[in-house]
Amino acid sequence: MTENTLDFALKPYDSSITKRLTNEALEDMLYEPMQCLDKGFVRLIDYMGGDEAIVQAARVSYGGGTKKVSEDRGLIRYLLRHRHTTPLEMCEIKFHCKMPIFIARQWIRHRTANVNEISARYSILVNEFYIPHSDNIMPQSTNNKQGRDGALTPDQAQAVMSLLTEEASRTYANYRLLNGEKDVDNWRYADTEYDGEQQSKLLVDGDFDGIARELARMGLSLNMYTEWYWKIDLHNLLHFLCLRLDSHAQYEIRVFAEAMAEVVKAWCPAAYEAFEDYRLNSAEFSAQELAMIKDALAQAPAIFKPESLSTREYGEFNKKLGLD
Amino acid sequence: MTENTLDFALKPYDSSITKRLTNEALEDMLYEPMQCLDKGFVRLIDYMGGDEAIVQAARVSYGGGTKKVSEDRGLIRYLLRHRHTTPLEMCEIKFHCKMPIFIARQWIRHRTANVNEISARYSILVNEFYIPHSDNIMPQSTNNKQGRDGALTPDQAQAVMSLLTEEASRTYANYRLLNGEKDVDNWRYADTEYDGEQQSKLLVDGDFDGIARELARMGLSLNMYTEWYWKIDLHNLLHFLCLRLDSHAQYEIRVFAEAMAEVVKAWCPAAYEAFEDYRLNSAEFSAQELAMIKDALAQAPAIFKPESLSTREYGEFNKKLGLD
Amino acid sequence: MTENTLDFALKPYDSSITKRLTNEALEDMLYEPMQCLDKGFVRLIDYMGGDEAIVQAARVSYGGGTKKVSEDRGLIRYLLRHRHTTPLEMCEIKFHCKMPIFIARQWIRHRTANVNEISARYSILVNEFYIPHSDNIMPQSTNNKQGRDGALTPDQAQAVMSLLTEEASRTYANYRLLNGEKDVDNWRYADTEYDGEQQSKLLVDGDFDGIARELARMGLSLNMYTEWYWKIDLHNLLHFLCLRLDSHAQYEIRVFAEAMAEVVKAWCPAAYEAFEDYRLNSAEFSAQELAMIKDALAQAPAIFKPESLSTREYGEFNKKLGLD
Amino acid sequence: MTENTLDFALKPYDSSITKRLTNEALEDMLYEPMQCLDKGFVRLIDYMGGDEAIVQAARVSYGGGTKKVSEDRGLIRYLLRHRHTTPLEMCEIKFHCKMPIFIARQWIRHRTANVNEISARYSILVNEFYIPHSDNIMPQSTNNKQGRDGALTPDQAQAVMSLLTEEASRTYANYRLLNGEKDVDNWRYADTEYDGEQQSKLLVDGDFDGIARELARMGLSLNMYTEWYWKIDLHNLLHFLCLRLDSHAQYEIRVFAEAMAEVVKAWCPAAYEAFEDYRLNSAEFSAQELAMIKDALAQAPAIFKPESLSTREYGEFNKKLGLD
Repeated sequence: MTENTLDFALKPYDSSITKRLTNEALEDMLYEPMQCLDKGFVRLIDYMGGDEAIVQAARVSYGGGTKKVSEDRGLIRYLLRHRHTTPLEMCEIKFHCKMPIFIARQWIRHRTANVNEISARYSILVNEFYIPHSDNIMPQSTNNKQGRDGALTPDQAQAVMSLLTEEASRTYANYRLLNGEKDVDNWRYADTEYDGEQQSKLLVDGDFDGIARELARMGLSLNMYTEWYWKIDLHNLLHFLCLRLDSHAQYEIRVFAEAMAEVVKAWCPAAYEAFEDYRLNSAEFSAQELAMIKDALAQAPAIFKPESLSTREYGEFNKKLGLD
Repeated sequence: MTENTLDFALKPYDSSITKRLTNEALEDMLYEPMQCLDKGFVRLIDYMGGDEAIVQAARVSYGGGTKKVSEDRGLIRYLLRHRHTTPLEMCEIKFHCKMPIFIARQWIRHRTANVNEISARYSILVNEFYIPHSDNIMPQSTNNKQGRDGALTPDQAQAVMSLLTEEASRTYANYRLLNGEKDVDNWRYADTEYDGEQQSKLLVDGDFDGIARELARMGLSLNMYTEWYWKIDLHNLLHFLCLRLDSHAQYEIRVFAEAMAEVVKAWCPAAYEAFEDYRLNSAEFSAQELAMIKDALAQAPAIFKPESLSTREYGEFNKKLGLD
Repeated sequence: MTENTLDFALKPYDSSITKRLTNEALEDMLYEPMQCLDKGFVRLIDYMGGDEAIVQAARVSYGGGTKKVSEDRGLIRYLLRHRHTTPLEMCEIKFHCKMPIFIARQWIRHRTANVNEISARYSILVNEFYIPHSDNIMPQSTNNKQGRDGALTPDQAQAVMSLLTEEASRTYANYRLLNGEKDVDNWRYADTEYDGEQQSKLLVDGDFDGIARELARMGLSLNMYTEWYWKIDLHNLLHFLCLRLDSHAQYEIRVFAEAMAEVVKAWCPAAYEAFEDYRLNSAEFSAQELAMIKDALAQAPAIFKPESLSTREYGEFNKKLGLD
Repeated sequence: MTENTLDFALKPYDSSITKRLTNEALEDMLYEPMQCLDKGFVRLIDYMGGDEAIVQAARVSYGGGTKKVSEDRGLIRYLLRHRHTTPLEMCEIKFHCKMPIFIARQWIRHRTANVNEISARYSILVNEFYIPHSDNIMPQSTNNKQGRDGALTPDQAQAVMSLLTEEASRTYANYRLLNGEKDVDNWRYADTEYDGEQQSKLLVDGDFDGIARELARMGLSLNMYTEWYWKIDLHNLLHFLCLRLDSHAQYEIRVFAEAMAEVVKAWCPAAYEAFEDYRLNSAEFSAQELAMIKDALAQAPAIFKPESLSTREYGEFNKKLGLD
């Protein structure tokens, strides 16, 4: 990533002493960019809480009532299984992220986070555009209206990359020109029906000092990189991950979700494990589907309790299948 | 606006009978696009409540306690003056809006609304880009880091418009090409260091059927139009308007705020009047500034109660100035 | 319910003409209290949208891309099945509700609604306490730490009712006394270690005019009734219903959820049906449980597509079970 | 506070090393209860960020555009003055709080926090009720519909305290009885029209094992103490403080706001100072009031720039008064 980007980003603090809950694995991750796509990243900036904080909050809710019941992992699994998610909100995490604008536009739809994004009204953006790797350039999926599938020929993929690269180059040259910069190499005279050539000479000539940044940006393309600070609680982050780790999520946002998932796995290992078991790799069956499964199971041998399931959970399993 | 746009938008319903609170002025506005910028609009789609609903909700809060006190307008002014805003949340409004993407990106930062935006993963977007009118193309403001100020020469403004227009045209031609369309007039062969010409011929040739829509969109520029359904309660809408009607708001979003302000004025006239008096045209003075004003007023003649202020409000005024 | 309560509640409006989406069944329900518990109710006050509004919002999101695909019911089922819930947020509903305070405390935890509650700082509350019907007075459940189960003897149940009734009566008498009312029948002299009798005579004597309402209320009990206006969008209401219609929800809030479910069923019949199939009566199986089911099904006969499932949904079903 | 309460509350962690932003003053405050009212408290449990984190987030937003402009305090004051509050959301804080239920009910209306409250469905609550100090027992205010003002005689205040104390005692005895406890001293036989005495003997006799906790709690009074973990970002906390430090806020919640304000002052000193100047001790004048002030100042000597105001802020001051 460019100098420019990290220039105004949080510098690592010297180590200091704290009585707060601390996580050694996350301390090692702090401030280190995890690369995503060609020029983007996710960087852990701060964190609050962890598995222990979830347990403490749950124990406040349940008061004396459950003290004896469960060791911590079991309690956390119980919370995730039954979607008692408020204790998860007691953990908070902050990232510095850099991603293409079209991904930022998907990401921002998660309304429960706190965001500070670089503003192109204040600053002139640096010249960074996402150009997908040829492996990721695919045709429209035929069975998924919002996805990609299959492959181009290598030449076609290369041609798409070239087109995107050249367009990014032209787009940025125009942006510089509109900002009043004079040493713009790559800019081409307009030459269409607008009689562009003569007119546009006006813009490279000395009297034009550029237009307002808030206007100049409008020609930038959606694959330009932007960046933000993004802070969210664990419950809402898991919801984000559930949607964005999914195989139907766009590849370019999944990459960021995967980086953040690595952090969460180190931060709250018990919660992340439960999340994988009860959300990410679970399956929900409709009333109709459930009836079909019940019918079919009636003709199959009984399902005995495996060791991996607690008695309680085995009971819940049977209850869902009407076998209790 | 194009056929295309309204094709999937809500059709007016036949008139029907309702016992809900109804507002005649808004009934006339329903479904009619109010033009904003060159190709955008705001269209009222539905509404719930009005001044009377605010009053009813406030009376539930205050119970019997204030029944006698105030007629409705006075109560609404009291609520706005003292920022007792929960009764305003009892009114809800829904718009269909079409705006350039760079404006949508500012707009979406208001997290309290419900939004359904057209998705370029599902659909191929139509060819509509915002090209500012020459009157609105201005240099960077020298005293406002995020604004515009002054004027270009007419020729310069025209040249900027030409540049933006041509770039939009090229951007859209590339977009069509990447979507696998074959009758793309306006597309130019790439001819830079990437040896574009040969490569890009591959894309107009018959074997290339386009890349996934979710990828093809990445070269679209931020002045392309998008659209959404947007639903919000009155309290949060007034907060939006307060920020976006401000003279420091970007012109291109202010235009949409002004259109929605017209609707609010007709929908909740008493609340809008109070909003103008207590929010939009009010001034907040810091502790230091307040002290300065108090000092200065000590050397000025007394301020008598004007007719426009109630005795109660005149008392509050004096109290703020330490004159009670 | 008392005169007092409805005194400041929304009066039915005369019928008027509207071009908004209107639902005949809901028009009949407007303003009519649906009784809940002994003295509570849910009353529909206003609504915006319906099944058609969900479809319209979804079509804006998907643009031209799905126009042909689905008739409305199918599209709504698709949205619910895949938890694409933003179009559901385009419907909004407002209720006037009256419930015991301990239920209001559970209810308010749903943070996504707009609320205006009667304030005991402003108003003296009327004498209404929830006394459970003897059928609903049960012992602590032995296997559900937060539930009830089994039965008391009829005499015991009656004794509990008597105790609660008498305490409510005493509590309200004290409340009136603390508010400075003089004709308090039911109040008893305190007679404990505080030498209450003499002291408390001071409170019934003429010189005591009561303490502030914001203080007097502190002795009121949690089964006292309160009321509020409550406005929420359909997505968040379904989430509320999913939790509060559940057999583990406390009976006293389930009653309110059931009343609101009746309204939703009439308001958005397709969405409610899908909610029942995909949320309320669905079952989620963890990764471990899913593996157990797959193993068992491997030994059962194949599951053929029933007529009630579309080909698409049957495909999704098989995919969840790894049978595709 | 009782053993019982802290039993399940977060234990202090041993000191460890962190690279996160750390605040020495807050480290000293961690886990220490700050007493509020007779039996309540606020305890700092965790924190993320501080003044430096606000500045960093703001610099991400403004990018290179403002780097040179401002040293940190000036930037923070600018943010607060212009209500650019998103950088404040980058700081997060968590408290463990214990307060009477009627205060919890006001507090919970701030919907932007994360909350885990002790549940009386799971646990039997301990015997702790708020009994106001005689200094704080006052009559209803005559000019503030929701406040208190003036004084009772000492004897009257004492009588109110006695009444509340005795009622709390009786309430708790009934609660124990309904929970099936047998050694209940303080419980009185009901003796009213319900022929309570005979019936209620059934409840102290050996066959009655209590009713469900979720029912038994309904007779508890609103001055009973509850507790929760409460986590919120700085922006929303300042909004809470602005409302609850106000002289119109109920005394019993103001006490908690004051304790948290102490913490914020140590945590983010620059932000808190700016909050005091621009929010807490500022005054907002309506359009009408502003006109009155302008008229009056026209007849007063000019206001010169004091040293405490920057040139920029003095310019803003004059602009608000139409003097630029």
